[in-house]
Amino acid sequence: MIRNIAITGGTHGNELTGVYLVKKWQNEPDLLKRSNFETITKLTNERAIKEVRRYVDHDLNRSFGLADLSKDTLDTHEAKLAKTLNDELGKKGSDDPKVDFIVDLHTTTANMGLSIVVSNASTMTWRAIAYLCKMEPLLKVYRWQGDVENSFVDSMAPHGFAIEVGAVPQGVLRADLFVQTEALIYHLLDYVEKENHGDDLELASTLEIYDHETLVDYPRNEEGDIVAMVHQERQDRDFTLIKKGDPLFLTLGNKTLAYEGEPRYTLFINEAAYYEKGFAMTLAKKKTVEIAIK
Amino acid sequence: MIRNIAITGGTHGNELTGVYLVKKWQNEPDLLKRSNFETITKLTNERAIKEVRRYVDHDLNRSFGLADLSKDTLDTHEAKLAKTLNDELGKKGSDDPKVDFIVDLHTTTANMGLSIVVSNASTMTWRAIAYLCKMEPLLKVYRWQGDVENSFVDSMAPHGFAIEVGAVPQGVLRADLFVQTEALIYHLLDYVEKENHGDDLELASTLEIYDHETLVDYPRNEEGDIVAMVHQERQDRDFTLIKKGDPLFLTLGNKTLAYEGEPRYTLFINEAAYYEKGFAMTLAKKKTVEIAIK
Repeated sequence: MIRNIAITGGTHGNELTGVYLVKKWQNEPDLLKRSNFETITKLTNERAIKEVRRYVDHDLNRSFGLADLSKDTLDTHEAKLAKTLNDELGKKGSDDPKVDFIVDLHTTTANMGLSIVVSNASTMTWRAIAYLCKMEPLLKVYRWQGDVENSFVDSMAPHGFAIEVGAVPQGVLRADLFVQTEALIYHLLDYVEKENHGDDLELASTLEIYDHETLVDYPRNEEGDIVAMVHQERQDRDFTLIKKGDPLFLTLGNKTLAYEGEPRYTLFINEAAYYEKGFAMTLAKKKTVEIAIK
Repeated sequence: MIRNIAITGGTHGNELTGVYLVKKWQNEPDLLKRSNFETITKLTNERAIKEVRRYVDHDLNRSFGLADLSKDTLDTHEAKLAKTLNDELGKKGSDDPKVDFIVDLHTTTANMGLSIVVSNASTMTWRAIAYLCKMEPLLKVYRWQGDVENSFVDSMAPHGFAIEVGAVPQGVLRADLFVQTEALIYHLLDYVEKENHGDDLELASTLEIYDHETLVDYPRNEEGDIVAMVHQERQDRDFTLIKKGDPLFLTLGNKTLAYEGEPRYTLFINEAAYYEKGFAMTLAKKKTVEIAIK
C-alpha cells in the first residue's frame, strides 16, 4: 500500500519542466487528487530555481548519500538543503518513511525523449515503470548503477525514480515535453490508485531496459579543457547502437575520432551539465528484466 | 581598406561555439592569416566563460553604450570589462579606431540556423553580409534596431555584426554548428582580402533581410512569472510567418492562445536568455535592402 507519493521539481534549478509542472499543480491541486493515497508536490531547490542555475554550491541530486546526510560538518547550500529535505520527505533508510514514493522531474539537453532513470530495485518501483511503459510505448528505461550508493533525491523514499525528458536547453520550457511529462505523471497516479486498490494491471512479465555500463569522457588537454566535440553523426542519437569504427568525436581541428569498443547503446549524449562531471555520453547494454506479477 | 578585424567569442560565457572557435584559432593562428590585413581573436568575458554563465553581473553585450562607457561610477564586472575592451578594440566612435571590423560569435537556443544580427549601417558591413549570403545561401540576416543605441560588442568598431547560430543549448558545443560557423568566418576573411585587393565581388545589388519590428513577451502573472509557454506548433519555427489565429502560446493549464496581430516573421523563439529580458520571440518584416555596388 502506497500512502503517499511526492512529485519533486527544480532539483536542478535550470530544468524548467519540473519547476513549472510543480507550480501548476500547486495552483491546481485537484489535478493530482486520487481516491486512496496522497500526493505531495515540492520544489526542492528554490534558490537554484530563482537563479536559473543547476545548483548553488554542488549538485543536489548527488547529495543524498547516507554518510553525507549524517555529517554535521557539511555546510554548503545543497548539503544543508539535502538534510532539510530528508527530514521532510525521508528519512532515507527509515522503517517509517514520511513518503513512500518519490518521482523527481528532470530535463536534459540530450535527445533522451521520454525516459526514466532508475536505481531503485523495489518491486513497486518496477511495477510502476512497467505500467508507465505499457501506457506510453515511447518511454525508455535507463537503469543507472554508476554510483557506489544511490544518492539521488528519489533515494529518500523506499520507491522511486527520476523522469528525464529532452532534448531541451537549460532554462527553457518546451510545451511538447511539458505536456508529455504531465501525462506520464497522471499515468503514474493511476498506477498507484489501481495498485492500492488491488486491480489487475495486466503488466507484461518482462521489460526491455538500457543497463548502465560506463561513461565516456571528452578528449581533453592537460588543463582538462575539452579538445573535441561529440561527432555530428553521433549527436542526438541517444538510445542507438554504436559500433567499432563509428564516428564518436570531432576534434576542434576537424579530425574524426572513431569509437573503439564493443557495440553499446549511447545515452545522455552531449548533456550540458555533464561537461564538468567528465562525460560526453554514457554507454549501456540492452537487457530484459523480469517484472514481479502479483 | 580594412587594416584589421577582430573575431570575438565568449561575450556570453555559456555560448561555447565562439569560445572554442577562438581557442582553436589562438592555437592555430595560421588558419586566419590573409595577405592584406590582420586578424585579432579575443575571448571577451573570461570570467563568465570559466563559470559557464551568460554573464557575471549583467549582459556584456548590452554594455557598450557611449554613455555607459564614459561613466566612471559603474563598477560591475561587465561595465568595467566593457571599458577595458573598448580601450583595446575601440574606441567606439573614434576617428582612429584600433579595430576596423568586429564579428562577435554567439549561439542561441532558438532554431535560428545560421544567422547574422546586424545593427550597423556601414557600406562595408553590408557588402560583407552580401558576400556571406552569396557564399552561404542558408544564411539569414536579422536587422536589429530595437535599442536606442547599438550597445553590442561589435559597436566598438566602425564595421561589424554578430553571428548567431542555433538551436544549441547553453553550455553545449554542437559539432555541426561549430563547423558551419567556422566556414562562415573563413568566407568573411576571404571577403576582406578581396575587398582590400579591389576584386570584383559580383555581389547582388539587393538582399532580402528580416527587419526587427517588435518583441512579444510571455503571458505573466502579477509576480512576473511566466504562465504560458511557446506553443508547440510555433516552437522551432524561426524565420517563418505567423498569422492571426495561429497558435502562439500554450498556458500551463494547456489552453492555446492565438496570435492576434498582422502577419509577421517570428525569430529568436524561446531563447533561454530572453526569459529574463521579457520576450518569448521577436517579430520582423521581410524587407529588401540595397547593397552598394562599387
